[in-house]
Amino acid sequence: MSAPRLILLLSGPNLNLLGEREPAVYGTETLADHVAAATAAASARDYALEHVQTNHEGDLVEAVHGGRGRAAAIIINAGALSHTSWSLHDALAAFEGVVVELHLSNPAAREPFRHVSVIAPVSDGFIAGFGGIGYGLAVEAVDQLLSAPPVG
Amino acid sequence: MSAPRLILLLSGPNLNLLGEREPAVYGTETLADHVAAATAAASARDYALEHVQTNHEGDLVEAVHGGRGRAAAIIINAGALSHTSWSLHDALAAFEGVVVELHLSNPAAREPFRHVSVIAPVSDGFIAGFGGIGYGLAVEAVDQLLSAPPVG
Amino acid sequence: MSAPRLILLLSGPNLNLLGEREPAVYGTETLADHVAAATAAASARDYALEHVQTNHEGDLVEAVHGGRGRAAAIIINAGALSHTSWSLHDALAAFEGVVVELHLSNPAAREPFRHVSVIAPVSDGFIAGFGGIGYGLAVEAVDQLLSAPPVG
Amino acid sequence: MSAPRLILLLSGPNLNLLGEREPAVYGTETLADHVAAATAAASARDYALEHVQTNHEGDLVEAVHGGRGRAAAIIINAGALSHTSWSLHDALAAFEGVVVELHLSNPAAREPFRHVSVIAPVSDGFIAGFGGIGYGLAVEAVDQLLSAPPVG
Amino acid sequence: MSAPRLILLLSGPNLNLLGEREPAVYGTETLADHVAAATAAASARDYALEHVQTNHEGDLVEAVHGGRGRAAAIIINAGALSHTSWSLHDALAAFEGVVVELHLSNPAAREPFRHVSVIAPVSDGFIAGFGGIGYGLAVEAVDQLLSAPPVG
Amino acid sequence: MSAPRLILLLSGPNLNLLGEREPAVYGTETLADHVAAATAAASARDYALEHVQTNHEGDLVEAVHGGRGRAAAIIINAGALSHTSWSLHDALAAFEGVVVELHLSNPAAREPFRHVSVIAPVSDGFIAGFGGIGYGLAVEAVDQLLSAPPVG
Amino acid sequence: MSAPRLILLLSGPNLNLLGEREPAVYGTETLADHVAAATAAASARDYALEHVQTNHEGDLVEAVHGGRGRAAAIIINAGALSHTSWSLHDALAAFEGVVVELHLSNPAAREPFRHVSVIAPVSDGFIAGFGGIGYGLAVEAVDQLLSAPPVG
Amino acid sequence: MSAPRLILLLSGPNLNLLGEREPAVYGTETLADHVAAATAAASARDYALEHVQTNHEGDLVEAVHGGRGRAAAIIINAGALSHTSWSLHDALAAFEGVVVELHLSNPAAREPFRHVSVIAPVSDGFIAGFGGIGYGLAVEAVDQLLSAPPVG
Amino acid sequence: MSAPRLILLLSGPNLNLLGEREPAVYGTETLADHVAAATAAASARDYALEHVQTNHEGDLVEAVHGGRGRAAAIIINAGALSHTSWSLHDALAAFEGVVVELHLSNPAAREPFRHVSVIAPVSDGFIAGFGGIGYGLAVEAVDQLLSAPPVG
Amino acid sequence: MSAPRLILLLSGPNLNLLGEREPAVYGTETLADHVAAATAAASARDYALEHVQTNHEGDLVEAVHGGRGRAAAIIINAGALSHTSWSLHDALAAFEGVVVELHLSNPAAREPFRHVSVIAPVSDGFIAGFGGIGYGLAVEAVDQLLSAPPVG
Amino acid sequence: MSAPRLILLLSGPNLNLLGEREPAVYGTETLADHVAAATAAASARDYALEHVQTNHEGDLVEAVHGGRGRAAAIIINAGALSHTSWSLHDALAAFEGVVVELHLSNPAAREPFRHVSVIAPVSDGFIAGFGGIGYGLAVEAVDQLLSAPPVG
Amino acid sequence: MSAPRLILLLSGPNLNLLGEREPAVYGTETLADHVAAATAAASARDYALEHVQTNHEGDLVEAVHGGRGRAAAIIINAGALSHTSWSLHDALAAFEGVVVELHLSNPAAREPFRHVSVIAPVSDGFIAGFGGIGYGLAVEAVDQLLSAPPVG
Repeated sequence: MSAPRLILLLSGPNLNLLGEREPAVYGTETLADHVAAATAAASARDYALEHVQTNHEGDLVEAVHGGRGRAAAIIINAGALSHTSWSLHDALAAFEGVVVELHLSNPAAREPFRHVSVIAPVSDGFIAGFGGIGYGLAVEAVDQLLSAPPVG
Repeated sequence: MSAPRLILLLSGPNLNLLGEREPAVYGTETLADHVAAATAAASARDYALEHVQTNHEGDLVEAVHGGRGRAAAIIINAGALSHTSWSLHDALAAFEGVVVELHLSNPAAREPFRHVSVIAPVSDGFIAGFGGIGYGLAVEAVDQLLSAPPVG
Repeated sequence: MSAPRLILLLSGPNLNLLGEREPAVYGTETLADHVAAATAAASARDYALEHVQTNHEGDLVEAVHGGRGRAAAIIINAGALSHTSWSLHDALAAFEGVVVELHLSNPAAREPFRHVSVIAPVSDGFIAGFGGIGYGLAVEAVDQLLSAPPVG
Repeated sequence: MSAPRLILLLSGPNLNLLGEREPAVYGTETLADHVAAATAAASARDYALEHVQTNHEGDLVEAVHGGRGRAAAIIINAGALSHTSWSLHDALAAFEGVVVELHLSNPAAREPFRHVSVIAPVSDGFIAGFGGIGYGLAVEAVDQLLSAPPVG
Repeated sequence: MSAPRLILLLSGPNLNLLGEREPAVYGTETLADHVAAATAAASARDYALEHVQTNHEGDLVEAVHGGRGRAAAIIINAGALSHTSWSLHDALAAFEGVVVELHLSNPAAREPFRHVSVIAPVSDGFIAGFGGIGYGLAVEAVDQLLSAPPVG
Repeated sequence: MSAPRLILLLSGPNLNLLGEREPAVYGTETLADHVAAATAAASARDYALEHVQTNHEGDLVEAVHGGRGRAAAIIINAGALSHTSWSLHDALAAFEGVVVELHLSNPAAREPFRHVSVIAPVSDGFIAGFGGIGYGLAVEAVDQLLSAPPVG
Repeated sequence: MSAPRLILLLSGPNLNLLGEREPAVYGTETLADHVAAATAAASARDYALEHVQTNHEGDLVEAVHGGRGRAAAIIINAGALSHTSWSLHDALAAFEGVVVELHLSNPAAREPFRHVSVIAPVSDGFIAGFGGIGYGLAVEAVDQLLSAPPVG
Repeated sequence: MSAPRLILLLSGPNLNLLGEREPAVYGTETLADHVAAATAAASARDYALEHVQTNHEGDLVEAVHGGRGRAAAIIINAGALSHTSWSLHDALAAFEGVVVELHLSNPAAREPFRHVSVIAPVSDGFIAGFGGIGYGLAVEAVDQLLSAPPVG
Repeated sequence: MSAPRLILLLSGPNLNLLGEREPAVYGTETLADHVAAATAAASARDYALEHVQTNHEGDLVEAVHGGRGRAAAIIINAGALSHTSWSLHDALAAFEGVVVELHLSNPAAREPFRHVSVIAPVSDGFIAGFGGIGYGLAVEAVDQLLSAPPVG
Repeated sequence: MSAPRLILLLSGPNLNLLGEREPAVYGTETLADHVAAATAAASARDYALEHVQTNHEGDLVEAVHGGRGRAAAIIINAGALSHTSWSLHDALAAFEGVVVELHLSNPAAREPFRHVSVIAPVSDGFIAGFGGIGYGLAVEAVDQLLSAPPVG
Repeated sequence: MSAPRLILLLSGPNLNLLGEREPAVYGTETLADHVAAATAAASARDYALEHVQTNHEGDLVEAVHGGRGRAAAIIINAGALSHTSWSLHDALAAFEGVVVELHLSNPAAREPFRHVSVIAPVSDGFIAGFGGIGYGLAVEAVDQLLSAPPVG
Repeated sequence: MSAPRLILLLSGPNLNLLGEREPAVYGTETLADHVAAATAAASARDYALEHVQTNHEGDLVEAVHGGRGRAAAIIINAGALSHTSWSLHDALAAFEGVVVELHLSNPAAREPFRHVSVIAPVSDGFIAGFGGIGYGLAVEAVDQLLSAPPVG
């Protein structure tokens, strides 16, 4: 039987407001637009994609748990929790698949508290600053990583 | 006449050693392999791609200058200069096109001195941790950004 | 039709224990007492007041979301989350009305971890150290701000 | 004979420029406007109010000394001295009445040097960000604190 | 009537994965194994033991609230929340019984973010590094503390 | 022939004053009381226990050396040297048996200089805050660790 | 009628001692010598020059206030207040003309406390290290700035 | 003619409140008591003593200036200005006689902001923690230093 | 024979872009304009002026070396290398003539990384914030320093 | 029977070299000279004085222990251990008499590592910078403190 | 065929000035003297020695690259680049032979910026403070390391 | 009579364990092996060599004292005391001969606490990372330094 072909897309706090909140920073597309783009990109590469948005750290932790043994990859935009949630760090450390951290804006170009991601040390790759375009890139990255992981 | 369709790919110090240096971190592909992949991805999207590798900060600064008014985008992996070269920061700030910062490994998961990129504040996007796969992703990102820049 | 006349009063973790927990610091009045005082002050100025107490960061974030387009102002005592919750910061940044941060004690006079409020940068005003009296003051401040916002 | 019914209102450096200096930050009302508002609020609650504005740290220290045994409360907007004057801190520590720290803007939302108040540890309450409205709130707070101080 | 003889055992984020997650750090026993050991140790000393595992900070706070007036002691392994949750700190400060902080590994020997526990200042004792053995030790410590609290 | 069954109990500077010095912090029991309790606990589990108290860092280092190849475990309360003695750290790193760090009070709840233990990184476990009760717990912990060391 | 042609020269604490105090650092010329040089340079360019020396922060603040609407430029050597006086910073921020910060020695080459000037962010230019020569340079700089301010 | 035999005793902000302010820290003697003690000690050793108390940094600076060429020694308790006044530091650096820094309490045992004295680097000696006794000690120290300065 | 009458003007990375790059910060004049102004000012005072612009740290170091024994003064605007190049610091330390550090904008009023100049400790004087006017001022300063160096 | 009349004078590492080591800093008098001066001063006030010099931290700790219940005061110059020995801090905290910290030079005016004394928080007074004169001052201070301790 | 017997001696910025620059720090010998000494020492041990001096970081990086597969060891005095060049760090990390870091003076005894070497983590050994003597020592060290590398 | 020809070799805490402790870091040779090598190297150059190993800081201080006026040089490997012992720093500062600091491993490449040597500022030279080879190098360095000390 084939290896799992599921991508878990996780969206953290306040991402449900996309398209409304600070459009100068985050753009006018809604989260639904982004999920649709990611789903299309996944389908085109023969992956299923499940999406979870939550404003609760605990739910995000449990969504990661729920991906264990079932999903081949997690694409996660943890919002502001990216910068403080060591619980999420620990959960991702226990996930055996590929992890891609995704941000709409480039955190390194914003306020200092956004310059450090506590989940970066347990992520394989990092994509930031491309707005909605990042969703398709993340799926493509996952696909290529799963097909032919880089040596080293 | 059409807008410029040139992508400048810049590679900083030690990247000429790729495939030889610390393969556990950087993989076994050579820089030529990566440039070929990027060139192919660019061609497929109807861009020319120029590549410059140099171990000299000044050359990198001048390569950026040379892209002004001529290139639509710069994809740059500045190597260790990413973390210290404010001159490069100033040069990129004077470039009017798209800038994508690219790393083979995920700097946030390595030594502390790699956690801060001084060119991040003047880059549009950031892609890291995908090994050679990142080159194609960066070209795709550039293409999409130029076609339909995100609002905000 | 008139502008919204709703004030949202939000109470964070442990505030449900008021009157029991550390009375030397927080006084002997209960949260119900404070809500009653705030409600009375609001009524006297022709505002409705909704109160939410929760020990969950995610609920607090969502309560702020729920106030968007509906409430004219938020008065928030986020308890210990005031000092760490960037998610709450991001939620409040997306709220278009007046925000008043409220504390019973004066955090600047207590342990160092209470000296910084991460929601202060997205609040209009700050009232602290007046015990239960602060609730009425906050309502009065909201009313005056909405009636005649300061220039600058 | 009755307890003292005097409120001392102290204004530090540069507040004499209010209405002229940086109206985008501090508003267009003058200090005289604010003092009038505070005096009216005090009268309505049966307090006398004395106002001192000075650009001299030593005068501010001595104004606090002058309030000892005579004023029931001090409302103080120490301007930039709020952030550096330990002498003022020591003077206020020796004042036996109520102390309310007042700022027109919200210092926590401005430059980092304004994030710490060295007089906060010796103040009972803190009101900031409400512009001229804060003067009336501070008087009301003083009145309530003196009438029924919070337990704890 | 006798004093309460209940021990509350609280387990924070990711502890539900024990036995699966990072066995090199946390061992191969499951949380159920540890709870069973703790329950047996408690029974042998005539205590009831209630266990709550949750990945939600708010639930942990409320579990502490729920122990007030009912449990004689709390044994808590808050996982990564040990290092950031001031809300949990405030909840435990309001608990009138004995508090023992428990960790399977020795946080001081791991990553820097695990070197500080924000709940240590409100805990009576601290046991770390003994793996599953720690559960029995914590129960024994609670029993002895309740029987004959140390002077000082 | 059987494996060594010796526990070395080491007490650092000022612990000879126990029972006299700051009883509000350290209790009224003497060091002799604690050694007796530890010895009894050891005997009950069929261990010999040797105790060394010294106010000299060098003696403590040499006592650790003396345990090499002879003692199965070291239980050490290094007093204030816990926070500064890298020599002790290096000595313990060279000890092949079990190391348990023991404190009567909970250092994390006291002055900042007591918040970091430089020997924690080379200790297996850490017990603090239980007063004299800790001695018995430490012996029990040693016994269980030697009988069935945790996996990981 | 013509624009104001007044330059205000402000000298802070201890500058009255020039020529006596630490001649190895500050030279042997007196403040009167420097004022004379500045006055001559100003006259030669058709400016009046007013000089104020004071050891009082408040006087310096008020001298700045006094220049508002009257002086075209302020040249200020605030002495040690340069490094701590946020009140002076706020006063200069409210001055609408040109501000030139002047030091006899080069603060960056002296003790660390002299490396940061808190008034630099509100100054147009900075001249240091030229001893008495700086006075003439500062006047010349003011004249040129007023005649043809730089673009940008 | 003989060398100057004048001792200048300088008292900074809030010292005029001695005997009233925080007697638990500063004792019940007034400043007049201390000056009398110092004067007596000086007379007994054939010195005149001049005392200046001021709450103004500028006055303190000028009092130091006034001692130049006239006083053999300065004994200074600068109050809270000890910790921030670089102007006072510069003034004392220009004083050619003996400088003794004096504090009633031991600043190193109080709040952190009192742990650094910015005038210590330009003082010959430091006496703290002896309450009023320190005044006599300081005079004695001055006398001995002037009679037989230590070598080195 | 006369002493050398050569001024070396050194321009670091990105200064070749002047007039194009960030005109809001650096103005619209080109580097050629500035060099012309400096040359004219030098000629008027009977100096030759040599100019070197380079984007290479090594070239800048060697230009300084090349001035040894030949130039009477160096005027240097090292661009972003001002903040990081200890090699340039060491080269200038070995130059026996006058060194003037020059900046078009006032670095202290810009991003934090521009607040420290590592070449300031080996420069005689510092001129910043006057745009192109600074070139003439620097030449004038050099001339006066060489004619009559300040005492001290 | 009378209260103890013993003063313990403790001298830490390297003080045995006095008169030889760095005379520019410490003077040319030997430790024997200082002890003789202190003994004479003590005798004149009817105290016995015991002196211990040691280069061993442990000996110093034990000398403090030995003073418990026997000496009325300790005068201690702990040399470089003043800045690191928390063991000595703990020992002095357990001494019930007067403690005076003594230094020949003024540590605040020397290298940064000498700016903090870890024993200052447990000392009553601090005398520094007077060379050998300090010994007599310390004895006088002790005598006066024991005769009439300051209130507060 | 034999293993490579080449030693690469690399000299960084400003070392070409040796004998002229700051002789009080670096001595009066020239770089040629040092190279001659190193060459003689190498010859005596049957090594060839190649020397490269450059003021360009990029050249130094490339000289290291050039040694790969050809030189048995690199002796490097990188001058001020030792403290900032992560590019050099990365180049040396890719060199498979022995690396010895060499300094004429002892950087730890000089300015703070010289206290950290960013190439130390990728060097085998470190020799500093011996002036020209260090060159012979470094060659001898290389020879011994290559003959009999230490275990561990 | 000839100058002293004695070299003092000092070994600090835990070095007696060499060959046993962490051979991966320190190698398999014993301290006796190293002393023999150093003695042989010394003899070959006509020096006597005395060796002291101790785990006591005080003994190390006194061994340095004992070398005064008797030894021409000290070679010291102070183990972990290198990083904390200011007493040793002060003792070495009082030694008039040559001081060479020696480490088997390269501290800069290990844990952060080993990156700073507090005795480096009072050492002439520093040799680290060469294992046992360093002993011979240190003796050779001493011999050359004594024969022909570097100028500067």
